[in-house]
Amino acid sequence: MTASDKPLFGKLALIGIGLIGGSIARRARRDGLVGHIAISTRRAETLERARELDLGDSYCLDPAQAVKDADLVILCVPVGASGAVTEAIAGALKPGAIVSDVGSVKGDVVKQMQPFIPQGVHFVPAHPVAGTEQSGPDSGFADLFDERWCIVTPPEGTDAAAVDRLVGFWTALGSNVEVMEPERHDLVLAITSHIPHLIAYNIVGTAAHLEKVTASEVIKFSAGGFRDFTRIAASDPTMWRDVFLHNKDAVLEMLGRFIEDLFALQRSIRFGEGDKLYDLFTRTRAIRRSIVDVGQDTSAPDFGRGPTKR
Amino acid sequence: MTASDKPLFGKLALIGIGLIGGSIARRARRDGLVGHIAISTRRAETLERARELDLGDSYCLDPAQAVKDADLVILCVPVGASGAVTEAIAGALKPGAIVSDVGSVKGDVVKQMQPFIPQGVHFVPAHPVAGTEQSGPDSGFADLFDERWCIVTPPEGTDAAAVDRLVGFWTALGSNVEVMEPERHDLVLAITSHIPHLIAYNIVGTAAHLEKVTASEVIKFSAGGFRDFTRIAASDPTMWRDVFLHNKDAVLEMLGRFIEDLFALQRSIRFGEGDKLYDLFTRTRAIRRSIVDVGQDTSAPDFGRGPTKR
Repeated sequence: MTASDKPLFGKLALIGIGLIGGSIARRARRDGLVGHIAISTRRAETLERARELDLGDSYCLDPAQAVKDADLVILCVPVGASGAVTEAIAGALKPGAIVSDVGSVKGDVVKQMQPFIPQGVHFVPAHPVAGTEQSGPDSGFADLFDERWCIVTPPEGTDAAAVDRLVGFWTALGSNVEVMEPERHDLVLAITSHIPHLIAYNIVGTAAHLEKVTASEVIKFSAGGFRDFTRIAASDPTMWRDVFLHNKDAVLEMLGRFIEDLFALQRSIRFGEGDKLYDLFTRTRAIRRSIVDVGQDTSAPDFGRGPTKR
Repeated sequence: MTASDKPLFGKLALIGIGLIGGSIARRARRDGLVGHIAISTRRAETLERARELDLGDSYCLDPAQAVKDADLVILCVPVGASGAVTEAIAGALKPGAIVSDVGSVKGDVVKQMQPFIPQGVHFVPAHPVAGTEQSGPDSGFADLFDERWCIVTPPEGTDAAAVDRLVGFWTALGSNVEVMEPERHDLVLAITSHIPHLIAYNIVGTAAHLEKVTASEVIKFSAGGFRDFTRIAASDPTMWRDVFLHNKDAVLEMLGRFIEDLFALQRSIRFGEGDKLYDLFTRTRAIRRSIVDVGQDTSAPDFGRGPTKR
């Protein structure tokens, strides 16, 4: 990546500075994508930590103060907080500013935020499909978005130039960008992200509450597959609670499909239908190959995990 | 690791030379753990490939010929083949030899193999809890077992000295070793390995068969969590078909628990019980920490995945 000749935006305000906000800040700073980064957080300790890490140019607890004169405002908060934060900053937004977010749910977030967006301010929701199991300002890094997709979901009638500018910003952050309707986004992410997280949380919970197998056995022998799920199930609890509460319909629809298929598999095991199992297990292998082929995962065995010695 | 002064066994016969057999061969050779490695496979191409890779000292398609004069025989075949292979080699086994296996199921494998073990031959089943999603002779590597657990499940009355020698061999391969009853092994592995694989296969299957979301969307946006499951769901189809068919009872029991918990979670989402979701998501985080603490997974975010650029 080469640094821009000219910043894409004069002032960027980041409301929330966890994994995603912190990664935007680091990349924007490293590549000179914006003239000024204002950071606002709800908790004083987080703000202090962001300052210690030197993630921005100005810091304040009041989001309305942070967005003053900002050309681009990005909410990096759990989706359940989107409406309240938008309400809090609405009066301070500069005419012509772009307001965006990074939430993993889009339909509900549009419903929460749009009513508070003032006339003359552009609202362009977005969702970078990237992350790790870690959270907080320390966990961000400048390369997080490289080769990942960012989905932009402008409501009907959004100013095309504003959409273009936000797309340009995410491209400069390293992302590929796709424009999609909010409802389609929510369905696609329910199956590619929300249900995977739900079943990961669920199996880790199940394993922890068995009478016949101890938690220490589960931990010791986790390299048989279980440990992969614990990584996902270590994701930020507040963020994920909000995802499930705010993408309820799509999650329940996809969960219904998952359970239906799981019952079919259960039946195949019960009745010893080896061919059906073999057929499924062969087809799923091909999907892995496609994901590696399009550059969305590493081809290294076991994710290229290094040694795990203590 | 230092090479042994004296080989632990004179002749080792490996029946099957995929990921596990190939890794045993590489490590045993590198560290001089045995005097001679005889390799036998069902398919001539696999045997030829093992020879090209120089994994052993002698190669033959007939397993009975391979086990002649062998001090240690390890079956590295899908668990469904354990009985037939044992029957085929039984007459050629040397008195005092140790026969073992690496199957992911132990109760059923003991039932399959034990009837064919001749008087004076020691039967010590084992299961190294290690692997990657890859298979075949090329996929093995000498360090696969480092810091992983190998579970040894000797049937009642097994010669203690024979158990000790097999434990010594697995320790030399890099493993920690735990001795356990076959039935307990099957229950522990059902939750730590078999159910994780089953639900990974299942969600990848579900995602591939939706009408409302295309396979190309699933692949493109897989970095939201889904891609982790595709790695596990790329595991060897024959091996895993056999695991589910031969550990049916424990798998169905644990699957019942998983589904019960999933329904509770579904209900919490439907009725907006945010506190219940938050509590579960917080508890699961602690289990991840324990797994990293005991050295069973890397502490690097995202498994330390490298860049995935094409």
